[in-house]
Amino acid sequence: MAAQSKIPQATAKRLPLYYRFLNNLHLQGKTRVSSKELSEAVKVDSATIRRDFSYFGALGKKGYGYNVEYLLGFFRKTLDQDETTNVALIGVGNLGTAFLHYNFTKNNNTKIEMAFDADTSKIGETIGGVTVYHIDEMEDRLKNVQAVILTVPGSVAQPIAERIVKCGITGILNFTPARITVPDSVRVHHIDLAVELQSLVYFMKHYPNAL
Amino acid sequence: MAAQSKIPQATAKRLPLYYRFLNNLHLQGKTRVSSKELSEAVKVDSATIRRDFSYFGALGKKGYGYNVEYLLGFFRKTLDQDETTNVALIGVGNLGTAFLHYNFTKNNNTKIEMAFDADTSKIGETIGGVTVYHIDEMEDRLKNVQAVILTVPGSVAQPIAERIVKCGITGILNFTPARITVPDSVRVHHIDLAVELQSLVYFMKHYPNAL
Repeated sequence: MAAQSKIPQATAKRLPLYYRFLNNLHLQGKTRVSSKELSEAVKVDSATIRRDFSYFGALGKKGYGYNVEYLLGFFRKTLDQDETTNVALIGVGNLGTAFLHYNFTKNNNTKIEMAFDADTSKIGETIGGVTVYHIDEMEDRLKNVQAVILTVPGSVAQPIAERIVKCGITGILNFTPARITVPDSVRVHHIDLAVELQSLVYFMKHYPNAL
Repeated sequence: MAAQSKIPQATAKRLPLYYRFLNNLHLQGKTRVSSKELSEAVKVDSATIRRDFSYFGALGKKGYGYNVEYLLGFFRKTLDQDETTNVALIGVGNLGTAFLHYNFTKNNNTKIEMAFDADTSKIGETIGGVTVYHIDEMEDRLKNVQAVILTVPGSVAQPIAERIVKCGITGILNFTPARITVPDSVRVHHIDLAVELQSLVYFMKHYPNAL
């Protein structure tokens, strides 16, 4: 799909958001949606939505809006909804436990298959339907896993990251305060709670009333 | 500060990240830093860093790099590090508890002052130094609070958001799966765990090797 490689990263980041909302509309029996409705629901301004959608070849009609089913079909293909990605979670503390209770499969084909922790008292437990294994079993068990959610203490994030990269993991959702260094072939998305909070405060002060 | 309103939002979002790393360098006694070092540490490409820094009036010198102290001084002023923002956390489940244990004040002047929950068994507990109050005390206690971290179940996110907006809150870090609707005067940053995971998977498949 040559067209996809032309989608700007900022647009690509909003795809899962659009998909999720349109899927909900579809489940409610809605057949069309205006960019204004979309804008209010996903909190992205409608000019940006129209530009994003033009990259997908979807052009809304005045007074009609967008066809929900067409868009969903396009997004499903684009987001590879039919192919499940196996995910492991490493670090079953409070944050890790919150992730295990989160029902990821409800809206997409991403599934947490297993969890790991160093605390032997947690080994063998099932949380949110996911079994917790000892962290030293990672090398044996990560064979069919592509992505990892990292919720270990920041102090061990780097050595754990190096171990999982050796297991062939190509994507890491890093929820630790530590930034990790991995080969370029591994995609890392970092969500740092302190940075998110500081960023909110900065925008509150400097960009009030902005979308 | 007229110059600040010209900083693009994408640049503004990276400010807390830059600040954090430069503060660490400063604590280690480093006086200068190259855009290459910065790039490797904060995982932003060096062309973007140079463009970002040019908005701050900071121009690196070839073979010298940037002056750490000058940049820190600039960022401190810009990020209003001297003024503490009072934050409340609403919803002391696993995710909320993880936030309470997170040491936010280590790197900036954002402080979680109090927490709220509907579960009476949690009321009066102190978690990470923060006291948990009953959610019906919000209206009395939120008077000196500017921002809220929302970690309640998605099903109650909207009614709780409406209550805190009435208390004068102007910023919400929404960690629930639900998107919330509030007046334009309230800044909302939404971090949806499922969207973050789906976004990572999408980038793994379509943008391998990209920063």
